[in-house]
Amino acid sequence: LPSKLPYVGTTIFTVMSGLATREGAYNLSQGFPSFDCSPRLSELVSHYVKNGYNQYAPMSGVPAFRESLAEKTSRVYQVDYDPETEVTITSGATEAIFCAVTAVVYPGDEVIVLEPAYDSYVPAIDLNGGVAVYVTLDSPDFKIDWERVKEKISPKTKAIMVNTPHNPVGTVFSQEDLNALAELVRDTDMYIISDEVYEHIVFDGDIHRSMMTHPVLQERTFVCGSLGKTYHTTGWKIGYCLAPKALSKEFRRIHQYITFSTVTPMQYALADFLKLPEHYEQLSAFYQRKRDRFNEALKASRFQFTPSKGSFFQIVSYRAITDEYDYDLAIRLTKEIKVASVPVSVFYANKKDDKLLRFCFAKDDELLDKAGEILSKL
Amino acid sequence: LPSKLPYVGTTIFTVMSGLATREGAYNLSQGFPSFDCSPRLSELVSHYVKNGYNQYAPMSGVPAFRESLAEKTSRVYQVDYDPETEVTITSGATEAIFCAVTAVVYPGDEVIVLEPAYDSYVPAIDLNGGVAVYVTLDSPDFKIDWERVKEKISPKTKAIMVNTPHNPVGTVFSQEDLNALAELVRDTDMYIISDEVYEHIVFDGDIHRSMMTHPVLQERTFVCGSLGKTYHTTGWKIGYCLAPKALSKEFRRIHQYITFSTVTPMQYALADFLKLPEHYEQLSAFYQRKRDRFNEALKASRFQFTPSKGSFFQIVSYRAITDEYDYDLAIRLTKEIKVASVPVSVFYANKKDDKLLRFCFAKDDELLDKAGEILSKL
Ligand SMILES: CSCCC(=O)C(=O)O
Ligand SMILES: CSCCC(=O)C(=O)O
Repeated sequence: LPSKLPYVGTTIFTVMSGLATREGAYNLSQGFPSFDCSPRLSELVSHYVKNGYNQYAPMSGVPAFRESLAEKTSRVYQVDYDPETEVTITSGATEAIFCAVTAVVYPGDEVIVLEPAYDSYVPAIDLNGGVAVYVTLDSPDFKIDWERVKEKISPKTKAIMVNTPHNPVGTVFSQEDLNALAELVRDTDMYIISDEVYEHIVFDGDIHRSMMTHPVLQERTFVCGSLGKTYHTTGWKIGYCLAPKALSKEFRRIHQYITFSTVTPMQYALADFLKLPEHYEQLSAFYQRKRDRFNEALKASRFQFTPSKGSFFQIVSYRAITDEYDYDLAIRLTKEIKVASVPVSVFYANKKDDKLLRFCFAKDDELLDKAGEILSKL
Repeated sequence: LPSKLPYVGTTIFTVMSGLATREGAYNLSQGFPSFDCSPRLSELVSHYVKNGYNQYAPMSGVPAFRESLAEKTSRVYQVDYDPETEVTITSGATEAIFCAVTAVVYPGDEVIVLEPAYDSYVPAIDLNGGVAVYVTLDSPDFKIDWERVKEKISPKTKAIMVNTPHNPVGTVFSQEDLNALAELVRDTDMYIISDEVYEHIVFDGDIHRSMMTHPVLQERTFVCGSLGKTYHTTGWKIGYCLAPKALSKEFRRIHQYITFSTVTPMQYALADFLKLPEHYEQLSAFYQRKRDRFNEALKASRFQFTPSKGSFFQIVSYRAITDEYDYDLAIRLTKEIKVASVPVSVFYANKKDDKLLRFCFAKDDELLDKAGEILSKL
């Protein structure tokens, strides 16, 4: 059987989480919390499951949930999406990204990908016959040089994929980034597919700048989000896409034949829970404490790092310690010192090795402390 | 925004269920039970949700669930699939079908589709640049003439899509069908994508003949199934694909970038519940009673029908009553007599109108009786 994705092995997240389990290692690799969701939220799911909310949700999502999400979006970003026609619930942000790419990318179309990039973007482009055109961001700050992005735009460029807060490197878009991107796409037909799953996890007093907050961007952007990162429920696989009506229309045409609809009782539960802003309003502070706790331990180590500005992730340079290939090092550390991480090279098409590891700090303090202590002695 | 699926409006299921709700009509249109799942099953979900099973499942599915499913498959069909490499859990059978099609269909490939056909098959083929080649089955018995299928096979034929028990027409494969299909594909490279979501709903003492039970078919088939139809949980969107290792490998490569993984607590609950054969062993009898109850009322009407042999559905001919277009009639009946059905023309590429309506009898007896009474007076 030939392959449409010959370069794809098992994802690094599966590899590292599997190895961590087998080795009994502290798992700071895959991006999921080691702690549970709010008991109130699981209570809500239990309620809906036990009261007959177990049949198909509407294709675009449970209306009450779309409404809650539109209200929350309006409250947080002062941007209005019509829940009836511009909000679509998906099986995780992964499905949202796949559907958005599928909606706009035709064979031969070029899509600009800033790398390092989350590992589902390029397969989604490839499966649609598109061509990923890379702009490589450089360590240590991974700042986007928009002039270099501009140079990659051709008459074939159909879309640009962006991600803020950024996985794996933990950067966030500034207002200058939004403005620069808007200048690039203004008066063009280019679409933007924006992965904003860490929208509520931004540090040091900074804010999340969604593409939807800039009108020139909003009108052409598929904003892909997730409830899993916000509510400690990555396993529920509830994501969404916010996009203007014409874009949402095509998005839904695709979505209805990919998964049709998404798990019903969780949608009802989240519809209720979204109405409590307390949870997501304190989330940045919650994760910032975790980042700081972990980084405090790292300061005693020979790892070098700039504190993450958002997301679940802290990347660190190990250049001062060893010049091993990052993938080999990640495997070795999991086996030998029982701390699992993700090598950053996997997020580059050419597996560029900048001697960086990614640690997920969405973990219990105890786990962070133990892993931090081990790492600090390296 | 141009469309990859220009022919696609909102699915008939959404249209009719929406109209039924607005009209306060008895909803015999969309294929979902009007009754709830077992309280024991919802109790299990509640247990897992409240005990921390809320983070990512492995990409291929929760191991205990894959094992339960492989054991059940072995028990029921005496065919062994390796849960580690040949069983993949998906977000509904819709995702399984999409991933299977995507795994094998390249631009220009032909795929044979027997119509009437479930409405996600052709969009999946189209999104992969394939070409659907139709073999039209004729009412009233919709028997497959395998000679006509053979005539449609060309050097470009990559796969054949089959569906038993059949949605919308309620036919089931005989052993002769399996044998004839095996003769067609033997010594070729063709794949089979088999939609078997109604596997446990077969009437009048007949049995479900899965493609996996014929060795020549098994080695080339993606068997796509669903737990939703079996456990009255269509809203949980838990499906799966069973396929030999090489096929599953490519299937998973696709799946991991479409949805990555599927809702965790439901997988754990179903892993436990699958171990109780009582539920699915009595399912055919359960639905046969419903079919018979509904058909008993129809006998007093001027509708003509052959009893459904499997699935949730009874199709009926209204030729003796009116020669209205079936779509118009379905809408009119929903509005005027408050009984919603699905017009069978929507399952044909050319909207062929054989004066047939599809009724879903996976409904409470009371609902069936009331709708039956109204229809009997028509
Ligand atoms: C879908 S598994 C990967 C989780 C994640 O977002 C990450 O670890 O980067
Ligand atoms: C996915 S909604 C459609 C449900 C169904 O299988 C049908 O009504 O045919």
